[in-house]
Amino acid sequence: MALIVQKYGGSSVADGEKIKSVARRIAKIKDEGNEVVVVVSAMGDTTDELINLAHQVSEQPSDRELDLLLSTGEVVSSTLLAMALDSLGYKAVSLSGAQAGIETDSKYSRARILRVDPKRIANELGKGNIVIVAGFQGMTQDMDITTLGRGGSDTTAVALAAALKAEICQIYTDVEGVYTADPRLVPQARKLDKIGYEEMLELASYGAKVIHPRAVELGELYDVPILVASSFNDSPGTIICKEASMEIRNKVSGIVHDTNVAKVTVIGVPDRPGIAAAIFEPLANADISVDTIVQNASIENIADLTFTVARSDLSRAMAIVEPIARDIEAKRCVADSKLTKVSIVGTGMMNMPGYAAKMFRTLYAQGINIQLITTSEIRITCIISEDRVKDAVQALHRAFELEKE
Amino acid sequence: MALIVQKYGGSSVADGEKIKSVARRIAKIKDEGNEVVVVVSAMGDTTDELINLAHQVSEQPSDRELDLLLSTGEVVSSTLLAMALDSLGYKAVSLSGAQAGIETDSKYSRARILRVDPKRIANELGKGNIVIVAGFQGMTQDMDITTLGRGGSDTTAVALAAALKAEICQIYTDVEGVYTADPRLVPQARKLDKIGYEEMLELASYGAKVIHPRAVELGELYDVPILVASSFNDSPGTIICKEASMEIRNKVSGIVHDTNVAKVTVIGVPDRPGIAAAIFEPLANADISVDTIVQNASIENIADLTFTVARSDLSRAMAIVEPIARDIEAKRCVADSKLTKVSIVGTGMMNMPGYAAKMFRTLYAQGINIQLITTSEIRITCIISEDRVKDAVQALHRAFELEKE
Repeated sequence: MALIVQKYGGSSVADGEKIKSVARRIAKIKDEGNEVVVVVSAMGDTTDELINLAHQVSEQPSDRELDLLLSTGEVVSSTLLAMALDSLGYKAVSLSGAQAGIETDSKYSRARILRVDPKRIANELGKGNIVIVAGFQGMTQDMDITTLGRGGSDTTAVALAAALKAEICQIYTDVEGVYTADPRLVPQARKLDKIGYEEMLELASYGAKVIHPRAVELGELYDVPILVASSFNDSPGTIICKEASMEIRNKVSGIVHDTNVAKVTVIGVPDRPGIAAAIFEPLANADISVDTIVQNASIENIADLTFTVARSDLSRAMAIVEPIARDIEAKRCVADSKLTKVSIVGTGMMNMPGYAAKMFRTLYAQGINIQLITTSEIRITCIISEDRVKDAVQALHRAFELEKE
Repeated sequence: MALIVQKYGGSSVADGEKIKSVARRIAKIKDEGNEVVVVVSAMGDTTDELINLAHQVSEQPSDRELDLLLSTGEVVSSTLLAMALDSLGYKAVSLSGAQAGIETDSKYSRARILRVDPKRIANELGKGNIVIVAGFQGMTQDMDITTLGRGGSDTTAVALAAALKAEICQIYTDVEGVYTADPRLVPQARKLDKIGYEEMLELASYGAKVIHPRAVELGELYDVPILVASSFNDSPGTIICKEASMEIRNKVSGIVHDTNVAKVTVIGVPDRPGIAAAIFEPLANADISVDTIVQNASIENIADLTFTVARSDLSRAMAIVEPIARDIEAKRCVADSKLTKVSIVGTGMMNMPGYAAKMFRTLYAQGINIQLITTSEIRITCIISEDRVKDAVQALHRAFELEKE
């Protein structure tokens, strides 16, 4: 008998029929003799509908109230799933994040889990119950309800798996696993059976939408094996776990792309101390996440400073940066929102400069201009024009022979 | 500075515009220098929609899960109301029943409040917040969420007013107060400025829909004055409180009717001990509330037993009673679902037999047949055919001169 934590996303529980179908999947796992804890997201578009309601009564709803409001979405889906299991003849109980013992800090809308007290869940499992937990939420020490922000339900699932020492955390979603590239762009893309935490973290951070990087990080920290698979069929999915051995660290694992990229360039920045702080502190205060930052070599103490933000943040970022640019006597600011990040990821690339060269050569052969380059130990990212993303990903998939095992 | 508890029903917060309008009403009370605690019901048809969702996944949803599901409705409306106040520039915080310190027993779907710990509310009031509390719900000692059943939000409001020693509990709804009769039946019906708890309890129990009898009972117990008024205008409403003096106890206060009545008659019941228990225990076990019970005088040890139930319970009641009637060798069972209760209520009736005689004479003059009669110290109820209810209420209103002050 194993303890298994499963997570079902919003599209998997979007209506009554889908909830009943998920209940049957859970029943099967229970029938195989396992203890089961299930984390669910809100049904379909519930969260958007609640946000819409909030904006009907307030232009800027307070984070505290919004969190309490949004938390109801997952409570609704988890109670319905418990009822569906009950009507199949399985004992089930649903718990809100608070009831499940998920304690967070009080940073509303993006709370971090401080600790999980698994007493109540363990108690319900002990009574033979399947336990359904409302994802994406927790409670502060002062009994206020928080939400975990992006990737919240994935994070709930991995945190519970860690606290309960579960054998595995299974993330069921609307894709079949982790692919060598987006199958919609590259028909030859291959599903990976297995991938290491570090590689998955880079893939997830740079465009793979299957699981949130926060959840991968937590999985790595507590050594929780994570399965990513489809909730709509029984194909095997991809296991995220520790690398099996040093030997397999010898190639590129996958290619990811992310079209949510915009670039701001401040041209003619006087090269003196404090300039970077003058620009990036106000952005941070406005909660705008800045990704890649590049400053070219200074010629006569004048440099160009380029950084990328999410597209939805571009107009706010420009509104903040333009007056600063004037203050610091830079020449001007230019924005470009039609960009895409393309990254190759693989632990095999560590200390192997050949991969970068091959990537640049491949893009060059396609006539694709590289606007910015950033790297980590196991990732190389090029920012290119959005309209060339398909060519780039396909060419790289061929060049690194990812269609082969 | 007074502490005021207000309650707004589902129709008063049915959409964004109505929520904003309620927020403006609350703001006005706050501006007058009061501390304000507001209890809200779920928006419009939310509760029915959630019940409908539950029935999509389960034929018989468990009470525990249904309570947790339904509790989200009031959390949604209370967060939205807090947001609306915030956007008007008023500090507001919403609390679930659990956060507000409402502890109940664990009888799901009809939990009773055991105690209220007003610490959190007092703390928020101390910070200058308007406190919005999700009505209709509480939490057990084991941190499970319960709902209070019928009249739940009214009960929440009066319980909080009692625990907080509020100056008054104001119940805002879609009617303007307590009338001498239903104004839709009797155009001359007069709104009462004031009514005693006991009278209101009888009126509410016998058909007046303005406030739930549970809330009136609680108000009487803790001596909380309750205002019932419209949330859609500023007319003054009706105050429910202790009788001002013995002197005013001298007439009928109002006439109420209730069309949710069905009658079951078991004909030819052998008159021997244990028969009543044989019939009514199984009904109680099936959670069917039996109202009036009448057994006529026994002739040759054979009697007829008649009782009334809610119309929605009639078919279930018949299914239970018919086999029992056969077992005890009664002749047969007959049902009638087209009945109405008409009651006159007034503390002035105590020990005054003249009122009953006048009521019977008035109905007789209209050619209305009285099927059953029940009385309390301050109420006389006649069960009549449904199609005569308007004639009966109008004639009684005239006979007892209720249009006069």
